[in-house]
Amino acid sequence: MTERIRESFSLAELAERFGGTVIGDGATRIRQVAPLETAGPNELSFLTNRKYHKLLSTTRAGAVLLPEGSANATQLPRIVCKNPYASYARIASLINPEDRPAPGIHPEAFVDAKASVAASAAIGAFAVIESGVEVGEFAVIGPNSFVGREARIGAHTRLHASVTIYHDCVIGERVILHSGVVIGADGFGMAMDEGRWLKIPQIGRVVIGDDVEVGASTTIDRGALDDTVIEEGVKLDNQIQIGHNCHIGAHTAVAGCTGIAGSTRIGKYCMLGGSAMISGHLTIADSVVVSGGTLVAKSITEPGTYTAVFPMQPHAQWLKNAALVRHLDELMRRVRDLENEVKRLGRG
Amino acid sequence: MTERIRESFSLAELAERFGGTVIGDGATRIRQVAPLETAGPNELSFLTNRKYHKLLSTTRAGAVLLPEGSANATQLPRIVCKNPYASYARIASLINPEDRPAPGIHPEAFVDAKASVAASAAIGAFAVIESGVEVGEFAVIGPNSFVGREARIGAHTRLHASVTIYHDCVIGERVILHSGVVIGADGFGMAMDEGRWLKIPQIGRVVIGDDVEVGASTTIDRGALDDTVIEEGVKLDNQIQIGHNCHIGAHTAVAGCTGIAGSTRIGKYCMLGGSAMISGHLTIADSVVVSGGTLVAKSITEPGTYTAVFPMQPHAQWLKNAALVRHLDELMRRVRDLENEVKRLGRG
Amino acid sequence: MTERIRESFSLAELAERFGGTVIGDGATRIRQVAPLETAGPNELSFLTNRKYHKLLSTTRAGAVLLPEGSANATQLPRIVCKNPYASYARIASLINPEDRPAPGIHPEAFVDAKASVAASAAIGAFAVIESGVEVGEFAVIGPNSFVGREARIGAHTRLHASVTIYHDCVIGERVILHSGVVIGADGFGMAMDEGRWLKIPQIGRVVIGDDVEVGASTTIDRGALDDTVIEEGVKLDNQIQIGHNCHIGAHTAVAGCTGIAGSTRIGKYCMLGGSAMISGHLTIADSVVVSGGTLVAKSITEPGTYTAVFPMQPHAQWLKNAALVRHLDELMRRVRDLENEVKRLGRG
Repeated sequence: MTERIRESFSLAELAERFGGTVIGDGATRIRQVAPLETAGPNELSFLTNRKYHKLLSTTRAGAVLLPEGSANATQLPRIVCKNPYASYARIASLINPEDRPAPGIHPEAFVDAKASVAASAAIGAFAVIESGVEVGEFAVIGPNSFVGREARIGAHTRLHASVTIYHDCVIGERVILHSGVVIGADGFGMAMDEGRWLKIPQIGRVVIGDDVEVGASTTIDRGALDDTVIEEGVKLDNQIQIGHNCHIGAHTAVAGCTGIAGSTRIGKYCMLGGSAMISGHLTIADSVVVSGGTLVAKSITEPGTYTAVFPMQPHAQWLKNAALVRHLDELMRRVRDLENEVKRLGRG
Repeated sequence: MTERIRESFSLAELAERFGGTVIGDGATRIRQVAPLETAGPNELSFLTNRKYHKLLSTTRAGAVLLPEGSANATQLPRIVCKNPYASYARIASLINPEDRPAPGIHPEAFVDAKASVAASAAIGAFAVIESGVEVGEFAVIGPNSFVGREARIGAHTRLHASVTIYHDCVIGERVILHSGVVIGADGFGMAMDEGRWLKIPQIGRVVIGDDVEVGASTTIDRGALDDTVIEEGVKLDNQIQIGHNCHIGAHTAVAGCTGIAGSTRIGKYCMLGGSAMISGHLTIADSVVVSGGTLVAKSITEPGTYTAVFPMQPHAQWLKNAALVRHLDELMRRVRDLENEVKRLGRG
Repeated sequence: MTERIRESFSLAELAERFGGTVIGDGATRIRQVAPLETAGPNELSFLTNRKYHKLLSTTRAGAVLLPEGSANATQLPRIVCKNPYASYARIASLINPEDRPAPGIHPEAFVDAKASVAASAAIGAFAVIESGVEVGEFAVIGPNSFVGREARIGAHTRLHASVTIYHDCVIGERVILHSGVVIGADGFGMAMDEGRWLKIPQIGRVVIGDDVEVGASTTIDRGALDDTVIEEGVKLDNQIQIGHNCHIGAHTAVAGCTGIAGSTRIGKYCMLGGSAMISGHLTIADSVVVSGGTLVAKSITEPGTYTAVFPMQPHAQWLKNAALVRHLDELMRRVRDLENEVKRLGRG
């Protein structure tokens, strides 16, 4: 980790800012957050799960964040609060503020004369801002990034290095787009005609709400006719593919490598596990959890957790069981035959 | 959608250009294409599937494209034609022509003195064109793109922003490469020797035929000794990985997130669903359809649709069934025991 | 393949450099390596698998590399050696040396005044090197690449075009990073608080050992608190996602499209097949092989091969068997009923 000199805070200050009750020495100085196993005397750690209770007896942390039910699980200085993980997030952000570049357009950037860039925004080296683009207050456009004509980038939004925004797309406020993200490429739309694929122009946009974060190399295609919409607060991990005309509800979180095919509508507060695959033209209700690796081939109308994963086994055992899966219909037939034969014997 | 002023066309003009029979007012002006649900009076919609017939009674579209069997399914002005979806693709392209940059080399691009760029081609800001490269007539190299030494880019081909072409690769005519595409990186080839991997130089190229489209962040590796070949008319969606020495037959379409391992040969007119995985060194016949999420571990010699997906269930049910899959061999043994016992009882 | 004039070597020279015994004409000139099927008289081919023995009778290769057990499988000039595939790798590298750019900073690159770049290093056009960065001897930073503040790039390491390294990350020596690679983006860490996700700052780094190769568009996230670590000699294919705080043991090889979720620890000398998915917070022992397409949802403590793939079938057959899998619990119940009934009958 970088060894910059950081501000320190007393435990009492932290509780005052973010809530919770201090037990023990409120003057304890906190310079950083750290896991229970490695924290040192100026570091604050946290407990979110009872199964880690035993780590409290060996930790060298200076102080700990504890949930209300575990207030006395240690004698260390501590803040007892409702949601220690959320408090940890807020304190970690206070101690480790984002390092944003200073406002201004880098002399090596290219900004079209017909683009509008807020004076408080920062445009990195070799970034390209095309005509008609609007870049909001305090926004950051990273080096080597591209913002196509007429696109809008909201206030406080950050594009890291090498992000691509195609023309006309709209990015909300406080959005974070990591390197390699591509927003607004053409959706996969074509018509077969006499042995050749005809391209269907993709004339919709991508519209991304406020407070969305998009991980490295994730791609979101523009709509064919209507827009592709990512509502506010959605969190997308790396290497996700979202097809044209999808609509992702607010505060839904999607883990890495997941693919969502075109025109699918996903509810609010859903959680999609890594490497999941959602087929096209489906509707997924609010608060649905899809396990990692699961292919969803039909709509889901009820909240709950859904799974479709072949269980892992040592290869030799898998070979046997996979062969049996291929012949389940035969097994079923044999069971039916047995049932008939046993019925006959019973009557005998 | 962008609110640019577009040319309008009469229904009669459109039928004359693209075929089909006008029924109703051929003077109806069309300014845009739109879905039946949202189309307005100057917009043309289309019907491709009988199950949407009922939308015809409520649509506010100015006119509709209909298949021959449904010529009288509405009283709206209409064009009746063989393949309404193909006609829609052509009309949408006429109304929404691609916005290509003007010819010329951007003053902020870097073009090596030994590269050859057609006068009608456009090279974007911060693009890099290395020595020996040939860029054909009307080709577009997007901002921040890279074309390595001796690579060839065919006429009318477009690289969007941030596309990477490694040295010596050959891209055909009218090809579209979306942002984040990487063509010609080294294949995954190495030999284990005394506990260390030795890199095997990848000295083949990638050769891409005419009229290919490649989606955002798709990667196609160069061949180890021979070339990796993508034949004409192939359509690749986003985030696809194609290993070294693969050969993809003409007009095959591959949906997003699919991986094709090295040296696999895929036929013409295949369709591979999203998140499919094709193992290496296989041969897939022409006109094969692979369902989304399917792992193909052996060659396919006959056309048809192939699937390998664990069925999705609510998690609690999945847990029970997955446990049973792990012990199918035991279930089979119990059925065999039953069969023997029933036979014995029958002989009683 | 590129038609540059290459140096030629005699078979005897090659055996002297890389080991093995020459049988036949040691003066045979070798200009290139090639597969048995296509090799010509100045080309060296190799046999690694007995099942290709018959190709030896028809090959037009000038010479062949053979394993010790097959020394007399051909009359062609040959080098007999322990590990022909490793010898082939070494000879191919000798004949096809990497084409590295000349040392120096391209006039169109941006190097911060507070960065340190070795005189023997090469920085490409439109590359960005931020303050505090160290670029080692003979390192190559490709065009349009970005190296964030305080990052370190080891000697002889090569970043191809459009590679992104976030701040503070450490890349070892002789590392190869292909285009589109993103190292050190924020991990997927957030806490839910009153209906909104709070971002957890990701303050760890990515630390990559010596002799690692990373394929195109692979992403490796920085640690949340501790570092994400890729040990020496690891080989990663394209489009792999590695979550925050993962630890990949030395010389492990991972095939394309695989996802490894956060905080998972993978041993040394593992091989993970393509499109595999490893859940978070697991431990995988050394020398584990995971088949392509397999989801690993729990830790693996013993070496061996592990698989979890639904077997592929023609779609109609799959439909039947998938339906039966969904109702395996019912099948099991029927088998139990049969067992009871047969027991009753047996007592009858």
